[in-house]
This record gives sequence, structure tokens and C-alpha cells, in this order.
Amino acid sequence: MKKNGRVTLPSEENFLAETKELMERWGADAIRDSDGTKLDNEIKQLDAKIYTTYFVARGHNEFAEQHMEECQQLYLMSLFNTALDSTLEIDFMKGYFAEQLQPDYLHDPKKYWEVIDRTTGEVVNVSDWDVNARTNRVVITNAIPWHEYTVSFLVFAIWDPTQMYNHITNNWGDKPHDIPFDVRGPHSNQYMASYLKQWLQDNPDTDVVRFTTFFYHFTLVFNNLGKEKFVDWFGYGASISVAAMDAFEKEKGYRLRPEDIVDQGYYNTAFRVPTKTYLEYMDFVQKFVAEEAKKLVDIVHESGKEAMMFLGDNWIGTEPYGKYFEQIGLDAVVGSVGGGATLRMIADIPHVSYTEGRFLPYFFPDTFYEGNNPVIEANENWLTARRAILRNPVDRIGYGGYLSLAYKFPDFVSYIEQVTDEFRDIYDTIKGVKPYCGLKVAILNAWGGLRTWQTHMVAHALWYKQIYSYLGVLESLSGASVDVTFISFDDVLHNGVPEDVDVIINAGDVGTAFSGGEYWKNPRLLTALRAWIYNGGGFIGIGEPTACQHEGHYFQLASALGIDKELGYSLSTDKYFTTPVVEHFISADSTTFDFGEGMKNIYALSEETEIIEYSNGEVHLASHPFGSGRTVYIAGLPYSEENTRLLMRALYYAAHKEEEFHKWHASNIYCEVHAYPSIGKAALVNNSMREQTTLVYDGNGNSKEVTLAPSEIRWEDVSYEG
Amino acid sequence: MKKNGRVTLPSEENFLAETKELMERWGADAIRDSDGTKLDNEIKQLDAKIYTTYFVARGHNEFAEQHMEECQQLYLMSLFNTALDSTLEIDFMKGYFAEQLQPDYLHDPKKYWEVIDRTTGEVVNVSDWDVNARTNRVVITNAIPWHEYTVSFLVFAIWDPTQMYNHITNNWGDKPHDIPFDVRGPHSNQYMASYLKQWLQDNPDTDVVRFTTFFYHFTLVFNNLGKEKFVDWFGYGASISVAAMDAFEKEKGYRLRPEDIVDQGYYNTAFRVPTKTYLEYMDFVQKFVAEEAKKLVDIVHESGKEAMMFLGDNWIGTEPYGKYFEQIGLDAVVGSVGGGATLRMIADIPHVSYTEGRFLPYFFPDTFYEGNNPVIEANENWLTARRAILRNPVDRIGYGGYLSLAYKFPDFVSYIEQVTDEFRDIYDTIKGVKPYCGLKVAILNAWGGLRTWQTHMVAHALWYKQIYSYLGVLESLSGASVDVTFISFDDVLHNGVPEDVDVIINAGDVGTAFSGGEYWKNPRLLTALRAWIYNGGGFIGIGEPTACQHEGHYFQLASALGIDKELGYSLSTDKYFTTPVVEHFISADSTTFDFGEGMKNIYALSEETEIIEYSNGEVHLASHPFGSGRTVYIAGLPYSEENTRLLMRALYYAAHKEEEFHKWHASNIYCEVHAYPSIGKAALVNNSMREQTTLVYDGNGNSKEVTLAPSEIRWEDVSYEG
Ligand SMILES: [Mg+2]
Ligand SMILES: [Mg+2]
Ligand SMILES: [Mg+2]
Repeated sequence: MKKNGRVTLPSEENFLAETKELMERWGADAIRDSDGTKLDNEIKQLDAKIYTTYFVARGHNEFAEQHMEECQQLYLMSLFNTALDSTLEIDFMKGYFAEQLQPDYLHDPKKYWEVIDRTTGEVVNVSDWDVNARTNRVVITNAIPWHEYTVSFLVFAIWDPTQMYNHITNNWGDKPHDIPFDVRGPHSNQYMASYLKQWLQDNPDTDVVRFTTFFYHFTLVFNNLGKEKFVDWFGYGASISVAAMDAFEKEKGYRLRPEDIVDQGYYNTAFRVPTKTYLEYMDFVQKFVAEEAKKLVDIVHESGKEAMMFLGDNWIGTEPYGKYFEQIGLDAVVGSVGGGATLRMIADIPHVSYTEGRFLPYFFPDTFYEGNNPVIEANENWLTARRAILRNPVDRIGYGGYLSLAYKFPDFVSYIEQVTDEFRDIYDTIKGVKPYCGLKVAILNAWGGLRTWQTHMVAHALWYKQIYSYLGVLESLSGASVDVTFISFDDVLHNGVPEDVDVIINAGDVGTAFSGGEYWKNPRLLTALRAWIYNGGGFIGIGEPTACQHEGHYFQLASALGIDKELGYSLSTDKYFTTPVVEHFISADSTTFDFGEGMKNIYALSEETEIIEYSNGEVHLASHPFGSGRTVYIAGLPYSEENTRLLMRALYYAAHKEEEFHKWHASNIYCEVHAYPSIGKAALVNNSMREQTTLVYDGNGNSKEVTLAPSEIRWEDVSYEG
Repeated sequence: MKKNGRVTLPSEENFLAETKELMERWGADAIRDSDGTKLDNEIKQLDAKIYTTYFVARGHNEFAEQHMEECQQLYLMSLFNTALDSTLEIDFMKGYFAEQLQPDYLHDPKKYWEVIDRTTGEVVNVSDWDVNARTNRVVITNAIPWHEYTVSFLVFAIWDPTQMYNHITNNWGDKPHDIPFDVRGPHSNQYMASYLKQWLQDNPDTDVVRFTTFFYHFTLVFNNLGKEKFVDWFGYGASISVAAMDAFEKEKGYRLRPEDIVDQGYYNTAFRVPTKTYLEYMDFVQKFVAEEAKKLVDIVHESGKEAMMFLGDNWIGTEPYGKYFEQIGLDAVVGSVGGGATLRMIADIPHVSYTEGRFLPYFFPDTFYEGNNPVIEANENWLTARRAILRNPVDRIGYGGYLSLAYKFPDFVSYIEQVTDEFRDIYDTIKGVKPYCGLKVAILNAWGGLRTWQTHMVAHALWYKQIYSYLGVLESLSGASVDVTFISFDDVLHNGVPEDVDVIINAGDVGTAFSGGEYWKNPRLLTALRAWIYNGGGFIGIGEPTACQHEGHYFQLASALGIDKELGYSLSTDKYFTTPVVEHFISADSTTFDFGEGMKNIYALSEETEIIEYSNGEVHLASHPFGSGRTVYIAGLPYSEENTRLLMRALYYAAHKEEEFHKWHASNIYCEVHAYPSIGKAALVNNSMREQTTLVYDGNGNSKEVTLAPSEIRWEDVSYEG
């Protein structure tokens, strides 16, 4: 008998019969609307949960326009302006989009703005500048010629950035601009609750209120040409306001400076090593968001409906891995799945009854056009996500876009029928079952658990030249037979390395929050890690791990890593250690290497460094003993099956557990074995779209040859004596 | 009639007739011995000046062995040692060559040594460590577990490193080890003078005393395997001693720390931004070396002979471009010529009567073996050197090695006959004549004039991955029709940019003395340069110019350069400016680009940046206006004819003098025009070993087509109405 459930369909008007057919075939038990689609009444009466998108802080212009003083705000920094003489006029709005951003002249610029001499870093005395509100200019007097100056200024953000993006992209013409309001404001705060109550009454067919999301959009600022200027999916930019500044002062006992938010124009992106003040500001926002969101969730619950949060758009402050999230009391989180790491980012979220992944491709014309085969993208998306699902499944999957468009592609409809069946099969087999994990891995950076599965990201799941060589680490781990935890430097400083961790990974470019920057000058951090490694721990450094030029090392764990980076200072020291080992456990399955952007000028410090790859006068892959522990250096690790295998071998080697590497293992790099000893099951999976033959090893080290069809998952009954 | 003179031959025993023949053919008027060859009495009676190699501070073991307390010294740093508990024993000699280096136990280690906690940077109290002189161990008590410690210790350098190298390389067996002695010691000081006096009497046929060189060898330390461990051609390591420490304190009023010399193990190489203390130490050594060398030169002059200094080996402190060099009173400097830049390094030395370049190849079996054609290397060497000679000739050229070996290669003998004739022809035509220079270029770094033509070097003229992309700048300039000056940041801070400079070049990796490191946080430096550029100056940045992360910029002249480097902090800022211009003055002669090591993650800051080359998601070549001035960014510039042309165009563009670019110009990049308006001459040269056809332009902009034979130099009579 065909199972059903755990699948959410988008639907649309005038599509009842086909919706029913697809519900049947895909086993869907929930139907959702979306930003551009509405559901017919007939559809709402189907035997399915109805999800309805809900915007808290935008889409209510009738209210917002009457309370522009509660409009959301941002701190912005002007361009850098060079003083040519002692008077300097700064067009601080230059480069910004006037339709999105308006200078805040309601609040005294002399109190809330800052003019900074960026040549010295000093704040310019307020008596030395004035604002011309008519021309949007700041005029500095007593400027020092040839110094550079910036203005940090408050604006009202008068257009919701997501709607703005859609509006501009789709040429929505004179459709009103959604004005985002700030629920810190008394009217807004009252309005958000009363409107929701009314809305719940008005939408009796809604079962699940899909908050998109709560209060503050991630930072998204447009330029004077109406194009994206600044995007930070983690950015708290839209949460700041005069009200927030004042509340912060009251709560924390000190006042924020504009520079605490503006941060030299870097705006505290996730790549910046966070300052103590910024961490306190984030905490302050999270606490507020949780308190206010809880009020809305309570109202939803009182109406007998469920509250679901979309992990995106206005999600700032919700921080699903943060300490206040539990208090919100959400039923569910839904988010979009770009691969294994984003799946785990959703699936691992604690304190909700269920999670849902929105899978690719969207049913949009950019994929669903004549001559294109959307099955390929769906298959790729499914294979990368399935690896992660086999470690920890989301509770539901769903799709987005125009169902009518997907319906025109029968092969696609069939393929999704197969995917949804396979998903339910996996889910029903392993949900709540602890998979076999050969190792426990900790990702160490400045963010730790707060940014679980969220490292090295700029805009959500987009490719950037500077990140792909690090994102591969998360993607590889997301579907690997290892436990993964995220720890911060502060965690290590306060609590040491968690007891059960086998291997720590530190990956990133020098000076970023992911590598650690000045944290690596902290003797207590170094002491804790050196002791831990020396006593048997494994440490993998990728890119510029532990990098911070100090007292003769660039990598502060250079002595443990057995390598360092040549900055020119040590060119006079002969570099004799350039010969790779003939073979090595870590590279046993490698034929070629792909370090992505790689890293220049890495050299081995002694003959004890096991150089595994050396080319172009540089080390890109090496291992080194340190006491009873081991370290591995990798120049970069873009995602691929080859690099996943390389990383797994590096982990087992670093952990001194080479002999356990073949437990529940597939020799072919395109295949993996996921074992569930407590239920006596194992899944043999082919992660590729080609047939693969592999040796598979059980938990006792016995192997057999298996041939798996393209994308196949094969369940086997197993016993485990390990 | 055949001219002769200006050429120095090496000779050897039992080679009289051939020496006479080669003297005749090459027009040699001087004969030299060398480290491995002696001259017959008959040869010394030929009609030629006789150069005799003289070692001041080594090669006198009969004296040195009796005064080991005056043996030269070095400060060395041990390896980094991790404390496992509160006691740490450090084998500080580990990795060092005991035949070269012996710990100094004559002077109290508690006074002269330093133990440093390299995790904190703190000096360990002398009461917390002791030295075991029997085992060469330092034992630290009260160590902090997991901190790293180093020992900075004094040694006696008991083997001259050049003799050591030759001894080991040539298996000289039980031949005695030359012990270097320090002329700061009273016995040594007396000995150096009295021995020289005697020697001058004993060598009546010597006309020129070729000092190789004076007192302190550049830093050259061997490892436990008897191989080079550390080499710094600029290193003052061998000049330090207890006597020097004490004299420094007396002269400067404060005491040096070992760390002032050891410098975290980087030993103040030329790549380190020099500290004030280190600069004062260098000054102190230079002053001493000049005073003492003057004594020897005076003795030579009293004997009626000339004093010539070899620019190498024990040249430390002589600093030919330093402020004390003139006082030495030398007649001549000789140095080895690896190309144009090294030729200029010799030719431009002030305050001597003549300079001499030792050309390649050496007459050694590695080049002069059957089946090899040494003409090729000689031709390459001559072509690169000739470019520089045409700007400023050395006064003499010479060769080294075994003359008997060269004699066996008749084509080589003929080729050198041609080279020596060509050299004399050039010299007689242009010596003392100011060549046409279209521009004045200043190389800006932490060293300035002191290291004229000596930037980015580790060991003399060797290739290093980290330097070749910068050395090309000097090599290109060495033979270009531009004036070149070297200025330091301190020069600019004290005196501003020299009046007549058209373009400043700042080239190097971040944090090095050549880029500038923390100098770029100095507002006065930035102010001076911004004002200068804005008012019409040209600025070319290569690699990581003005790099020092501070207040929102990585390049502190980012606003002038129109580019910056992405470190991850500004990934959230959209990078729209990625489209190269269709054509540009700078790249008008370029078909492909070679930036050498290049530079990653450079991006344009605004639409005003003229991107000239963009690939791999990065800018590698760009220009930008800044007020009336212009800047150019180049990712790297290894030496080639193509890059020489690129640099010349960049210079003219930066200087806003494009219209003068075609004065005295050759269109073909393998050809150049060197003009001497004051004597009405121009040299058209083919820098390649292939025939070249080119348009040549005179000083009035008239052009004609010319075909030049391989390597040809063609003199023309010209008039100049410019
Ligand atoms: Mg219903
Ligand atoms: Mg969904
Ligand atoms: Mg004579």
C-alpha cells in the first residue's frame, strides 16, 4: 500500500483537479500558498493541512504609513571622502537607493550620527560638522587636509528589501512599496498582535501560519541604480533603530556607538571576528525577537493553529541555534535546501516539533522551459540532500513555485513521485535512530554553535570565489558518518574542548571569524588546544588556520601543524622539506587533488612533516605528529566526492583511528554506507547518477562487492558486533 | 686601431703565453688572482695592473687561534620548544652546525642570553632558567605548560662561511678551517693593520688590493647536516658580539637586547620593516666599519697601491649607498653582474674612482664542458647588462674562474673579444654623458637610498618564488630611459616627495619593508602621498602596495588606487566593477599578460577604475585618476621585454606624459633607443638574439623603420630640438 504524508505542495488558483492528482501521486498532505499565488477555496477544503504565508512587519501599509516614526531603520556609512582642504562636504547618500533609504532627521544627527577621520580612526567632534537636511550633505569644518572622512548616519528603511527585489525584478510598476515597521514601536507592537488575531479569524482554513518571518530582514541594501549593494544573510543591520539604541543602553548599561554597527563599512558580517559589543548587541536583539515572536506564536496557538517559521527573509534575531530560540515555542521551521549542509542547517534545529525542507528546483520558468529536463537538477539536489537526510532527516519536504508549470513535465512528476516515496521510506526507517558515527568532529571558529552549519556564507547558499574552498568542508561533513558539532573559541576558553571530540577543524582565511584572527594571540586558547592535541587529539587546519602573525609564527599552532606560511620574513631560512611521502593513508584514494583557491607559500617546518602534496613550490596537503596527537593541513577543500573522501581519511588519520576507517565503508568514492546498528539496518547509497560497483564493508570489517544502480539506495539488514 | 683597457682577466699558474694572447684579443689591462688560483711571477710582470685578493678577517689562523676570545660571534635562536610541564629542557644548538658555531660560555649567559615565552612574547626571568654548558641545554623552571619557549644565545662563529661552503662543497678534507676574527678586539684590530703593512711589502707586484671584503660576512649559518640553514646577503648577524653590544651601549646610551638581533627568528632580514633600534644598530656598525676600513685603505694608499672592495662576502656595514661609505676612501668597487639591476647596483655606487662588473659565466666546468656552448650564457648576460650600461656604465668589466678552461672554447674567446670591444666603444662614447630620461621614478620602501638597486633580495641574485614578481620592476628600470631614485618612508615623512619625481612605485607583499607594513598607518605619510598624487603625481602599486588593514581599507591608498583587496570582510558588498576597458594606453603593446605570482582577490572600488586586465574574478591591472594625478595597480611584474614595455607605459600614463612616450622610442618591444642629446648620439639596440625590425622614433617624434641584427647596437648621429 502506498504511503503518504510528509510532503508539502504549492498550489494555485484554478488548479484543483491536477492538485488532487499530484497530491495523490506525491503523497502530499499539506498545501501552501506563496508570495505570488493564492489558494482557491476548493483547494483549502482538500484533505491536507493548509500553510498560509504571513508577514508580520510588512505588507500593512495602511498601518505603516500612519506611523512612519516607527519605520525600520539602518545605520549606513558614506563613501570615503578625502579632504582637499579644511572644509569637506560629504554627499553621504551617494551610492544609496533613495527609494529604499531616507536619512533620519527626526532624531538629532548630532546625537545619533558619527563622522570619523578614517586616516586616524578618530571621531570628529560634533561641533566640527553640520548636516544640511535639504541637500543631504554633511559639511566638516576643521578637517585635516588629505585625511579621509566617513559619515555614519541613520536612515529609515522605507521599502522592504524582498518586496523591493521582486518589485524591481518583475516590473511591478506602481504597486505600493511595502513599508517595514519596527515592532519596538508601541503602535507597531500593538498592531502586530491585533492584526494577527483578526487575520486568524479571517483565515479559518489555515492550519499552519507560515511566518515569513518575524521582524527584521537580513541586511540588504540597494544602490543608486536600484541594484543590490550590500547583502549579508546574517546581518543584523535592519534591527537597529533609535528605539533599539535606547533599549540597549537601558538593558546593558552602556550606549552603542554608530561605529559598533557600521564597523568601518564592513557592518559586522559573519566574516568579521565579532567584537564583545556586537555579540552583546546580537544577544539583545535575539532576546527581544524571541519575546515578541513568542507573543505571536502564542496567539497562533490560541487559535488552534500551528506556527511555522521560514528560515530566511526577516529571520534576524531568531537564530535557531541561539539560546532564546526555544522560548519562541514554534511548531516548525521551513527552509530552502541547496545541498547537504543547508539540509542539516534545517534538520538539526532543536526545540521544534518538525522541520521541513523546500527542495529545488523551484517550479519557475528558468528551469521549467521547453527543451530543458528539470529531472537533472532535482536529482542532483536530491542526491546531495539525501546524504544529509541519512544522517538526520528533516521531517517533511516540500516544493515551491507554480505547480501548473511542473505538471507540464511528466518525467519530472514521475521522478518526484519516486523521490517522495524514497524520502518517506528513509524517514520511516531511521527517524530518531542514531546512525553509526565513527568520529566526533568539532568545527572551531568565533561563532561556534550559534552558526551551526552556517559558516562561510554571505548571501544564502550563493557561490563566492572566497568561500567555496571552505564550504566544501561543511558539505562533505553533512552526509558523512561522523558526529559534527560547532564550537567557539570562547567555548574552548571557558569549558575546554568537549570530552567526546575526536578532531577539531579550523578553516578559513586569516583574520576572519572562521579562522579566528586575534583570538590566536590568546595564550589560554593556545594552551588548551596544544594540550588537547598533544594528548591525542586530532586537528585539521584548512586554508589559514590559527593564522595571526605573532612572535615568529604566522600559524599560531605552527609547531603542531608542522607547516607555516612564508610571508617574506623567513625567506632567508632554507626550506629543505619539500619531498612528498610516497604514499599516505590520507591520499590513498586520491588520484588528483583539487584545493580550490588553495593557499600560497605554505612550507614544512621539519622532516617530521608528512608532506602529501607539494607543487608549485608549496605544500598543499600535509600531516604532522604532535605528541600523541596528529594534525593535518589542507590548502582548501571545495566540495566533491574526491574531497569528501580526502576529508574523511584526514579525519580518521588525525584521530589515530585508521583501523576503524573501513567500518561501514564503501571503497568507491561515489558510494557511502550509512549504518543504524540499533535497528540492524544499513543503507548502501550510490551518490552518483551513474552505475557504481563498490566493495562495501560492514561493522566487522567484512566486505563484499555490490553494484548499485544510478542514485540507488539499498537497504540491508545487518548485525553489528562492534 | 684596436683599443684596449677596461677589462680584467683572471689568470693562473703555467698559463703565460695564452694569457698574453687573451690579453691582446680582449684588450685586458688588468689581471687578477682568485680564491683558488695564484699568479706566476711572469704574469705579474706583464703590462697589466695586478689585482690581488686580500682577506682581512679570515685566513690568518696562526693569529686567530691565539685569540679565540676575539673570534666573531652571532646571536642565534633555538627552535620553538613546547613546555609539557613546568620544567622544559631546550637543546638550543639543535639544528645548528657545531663545526661552525660554538655557544659562548666566556660571557655570562644570564647577561647576554634571553629565554622568551613565544606564546606571550614575555622574557623569562633569568632566575627561572639555567644553562648546562656540558650538554648545551637550557633548563627552564616555572615554565607555563603548553607555552612555547625559545633561547636566544650567543655563539662564536669559528668557521668563515664562504670558506666553509667551498671546503664542504669541494671536499677539502683536513684543510684548516678559516677562523673569522673580530677587529673590534684589540689584538685583531692591531693585527689587521700590521699584517696588511707586511703583506703590502711582501707583494710588490700587486697594484690593486682587492679586499674580499672587510670585516663581517653577510649572515650565513649552516645546519647540523653541514648545509645552508639561513642566508641573508644583507644580514648584519656576524657583526654582533659582546664587544659590539658594549660599544653600542656606550655610543647610543642604551643596551641592545638579544631580541633586537634575533627578531623572533627572522633576524631582521631586509624583508622585515626595520625597527628604530635595528636601524640604529646598522648605523652603529656602518660607522665602525667605515672607520676601520679607512685605516686599511689609508695603509694601502701609503704603499702606493689602490684599494678595491668586492661587493659581497664580508661586505656588511660597508653599505656603498650608506652615509659612511665615502669616508672609507676606496678607489674602486667590484661586484658580480647577474643582469641589469645588479649592474646598476655597482655602476651607481658613488665616491669611488671606478667600478668593475664581474660578468657571467664564470669559467667553471659547470658551463665550460664539452658539448655546451658558453656563448649563449655570455650573450644573455651581456644583453641584460648592456641595457644598464647604456644608462650608466661600470668603468671596467672582468671575468672569473679558470682562464685555461675558457681558452678551450674558441667561439667563446671570439665572442668575448667582440663584447669587450663593444663595451669599450659604449664606454668611450657615453661615459659621463647624461642619457635622455623621459621621467624620474622613485622606488618607495622602508629602506630607501640605502638599498639602491637592492630591493627584494635574499641571497645575492638568486631566484625565489616570493621575489621574482617584484624583481622584474628593478630589472626593467635598470635599462630604461628613466631616472631612478630610491626613497624611504622616513624620507617622505621628513622631506616630502622629492621635487623632480614623476612617479612613485611601491611594490611588495603586505607587511614587508618593501610594501611598508605599519608605516601605512602613519597619517603624515598618507597625507604627503595623497596630496602629492592629487596634485598631479603618478603612483604605481605592485602586489600589495600600501597594504595594512586599518579603518576600512586594506590598501591605505585604496581611494587613490581605485582598488582594494578582498579579505572576506567586504564580501557582502557587491562588486560590480569587473569589465575591462576595450583598450588602454598601458596595454597597447600587450598581447598576453604575465603577472608572475600575481595577487588574489583584488577588486575595483568604483566605475572610475580603469580595469585593464580582469580574469579569474580578479583585477590584475588597472588605473585610476586621483585629482590631477593617476595611479596604476599591477598584480606582479616578473622581468620580460613585454613587462618592461608594460611598466614603461604605466609610468608614462601615471605621469600624464603619454604624448612624450614616443620620444627616443622603439616600437618593437625587443628594441630600445638610448639617446644622448648633449653629444648628438643615439644607440639603437636589439636586446634579443634574433633579428628585429622596428620603428624608431627620434626626440622630435619622427620615425623610421630599422632592422637590427641579433644583439646589434647601432649608433646614430642625432639632433634634438626638444
Ligand atoms: Mg483543512
Ligand atoms: Mg515548503
Ligand atoms: Mg704591474
